[in-house]
Amino acid sequence: MSAIFLAALDIGGSKMAATLADASGPLARVVQATLKAGAADAIGQQALCLIAAACTEAGISPDRISRVGVSSCGPFTFGQQGLGLVSPNLCGGLTRSDDLPNDWTLIPLESVLRTQFADVVIENDCVAALIGERAFGAAQNQNNVIYVTWSTGIGFGLCVDGHILRGKSGNAGHAGHMLLSDSSDALCGCGNRGDLEALIAGRNLGKRLGQSLPQVFSAAQAGDAEALSIIAEAARWFGRGLYNLVTTLDTQCLLVGGSVWRNNANLLAPLVEAEISSRFPALTQGVLLQSALLDDLVTDLGALAMVMPEAWRDDWRQRKPWENIQTVALDDAS
Amino acid sequence: MSAIFLAALDIGGSKMAATLADASGPLARVVQATLKAGAADAIGQQALCLIAAACTEAGISPDRISRVGVSSCGPFTFGQQGLGLVSPNLCGGLTRSDDLPNDWTLIPLESVLRTQFADVVIENDCVAALIGERAFGAAQNQNNVIYVTWSTGIGFGLCVDGHILRGKSGNAGHAGHMLLSDSSDALCGCGNRGDLEALIAGRNLGKRLGQSLPQVFSAAQAGDAEALSIIAEAARWFGRGLYNLVTTLDTQCLLVGGSVWRNNANLLAPLVEAEISSRFPALTQGVLLQSALLDDLVTDLGALAMVMPEAWRDDWRQRKPWENIQTVALDDAS
Repeated sequence: MSAIFLAALDIGGSKMAATLADASGPLARVVQATLKAGAADAIGQQALCLIAAACTEAGISPDRISRVGVSSCGPFTFGQQGLGLVSPNLCGGLTRSDDLPNDWTLIPLESVLRTQFADVVIENDCVAALIGERAFGAAQNQNNVIYVTWSTGIGFGLCVDGHILRGKSGNAGHAGHMLLSDSSDALCGCGNRGDLEALIAGRNLGKRLGQSLPQVFSAAQAGDAEALSIIAEAARWFGRGLYNLVTTLDTQCLLVGGSVWRNNANLLAPLVEAEISSRFPALTQGVLLQSALLDDLVTDLGALAMVMPEAWRDDWRQRKPWENIQTVALDDAS
Repeated sequence: MSAIFLAALDIGGSKMAATLADASGPLARVVQATLKAGAADAIGQQALCLIAAACTEAGISPDRISRVGVSSCGPFTFGQQGLGLVSPNLCGGLTRSDDLPNDWTLIPLESVLRTQFADVVIENDCVAALIGERAFGAAQNQNNVIYVTWSTGIGFGLCVDGHILRGKSGNAGHAGHMLLSDSSDALCGCGNRGDLEALIAGRNLGKRLGQSLPQVFSAAQAGDAEALSIIAEAARWFGRGLYNLVTTLDTQCLLVGGSVWRNNANLLAPLVEAEISSRFPALTQGVLLQSALLDDLVTDLGALAMVMPEAWRDDWRQRKPWENIQTVALDDAS
């Protein structure tokens, strides 16, 4: 029996990573800044180059790769070209932002990857993170679980009754754009006022406060009353958003990751728990709020888990071979 | 091959119905006011009596029934006795309402039905309605569809990627208790201020306006400006609630039923559609808003569809045998 090789792609707004793995674990991982200019298929072509670079690192030919799992920023759209990206943080044609020197309105992804690989699975990055945490992290035996990242943005991966939710275009989990406040004029990049991202996503909250969010949190950690009150307000909004999902999906376990949460879970968790458990006991009683475990590798591991044979997963759970992963940073592409 | 007989129960806060059916269609249907007093198992015992009464009407012995499908008001809880009801509109021990002369805090349902029937499937009433509309109504080929009833209360049945969502205790879809407003002091029976039910459920909106909701709608239908403005505000909240679910679940089709909607869809639909489509195009573009088709029989048909052989369903879709159903109203039980 010949060895099976898998590739994982992690496509984000600022960086892209490719990982090559076999049954023993990850063999190589390369990262590079995500391209922001060129033809519309530049992102897909860069992804193919990164897989080739990971293969070179590992001394394996790319044509030996059986399956490719992909975690990508969204939203997605489905067209004649298969799944494509309509991401405001990549497509200059969809935003008025000056730091996107392109006029892309749709990034073809699936069609470009399929020029080289027959078996490709693509999921939204928060769905990938959820798959990663269910495979190797804090949600291994949870069938009713939500993964949420609280970072520069806020995104969700949803699992109900053991099914990962995808929706009509693979965009389930964009609940960061759920409307929560009708009195706040906080503005989201999507145009909403008073949605969860507008209120407390890192990029928006920091801008509104006129100071960096890490500074606010570090003042709060030192006991500063004003900083603590800002954080209590943010935790209350986050708790209201999570409560809305619990009452919608009857969730058992809430798994939180992302930089805002990770560095401040000690302050945030009790406040968020109190907000959730103050409401509708038939739905909220016994709900668990936990921190995600896999940190920066969560989407890479999720992308691998999407395409991994069952037997590998059980073995990797025991051995945790990702803990020894070596990452090679490549120079910017052009 | 002997004939297959199925029973369906529809347990609501004010009335209970039992239907007996075979492959040809519904054979008999009986209804009775739901018991509000007696031992905690009174509701389950009444359900067994109603099935027996439907059997008597049809001249069939209850021991010939193979499977029982149940639509019930919730919320549900799972305990050693199987699924039970913790419904505030039935359990006097959970509310301070004077019209519930009982001290029930938990109504055993599954365990009582199982004393007589081995094969019982129980779903929340809005989930049952969704199953009914997917089987015989307006959502026959929809895999990403939400059923919502806008009536005295507001409840949802959720289907994503072809999976009906249940959640940890079968309570998925209680999104009527989703928080939408932080400026309104509208109070919900669950204790929330500013959730969707508090804002626009029939029982709450009428009370807050100090006039009956049918009067407001009939004034609006006649062109009264103040009534039209009340309705525009209610439609806006309803649209915001539906948008929150679309951005969470990436839904294709929204199917609306319930008395408030059914009588006023001509006024409400354009307003609700405008509210949804004004937001986040990647998620809302192409979303369909439709009226449910099955009206008062939707939960009964959903309960039958839960336990029905596939072949019956295809045949019933053609013949619509429920259109000839005869319902017998029984005197109150005691």
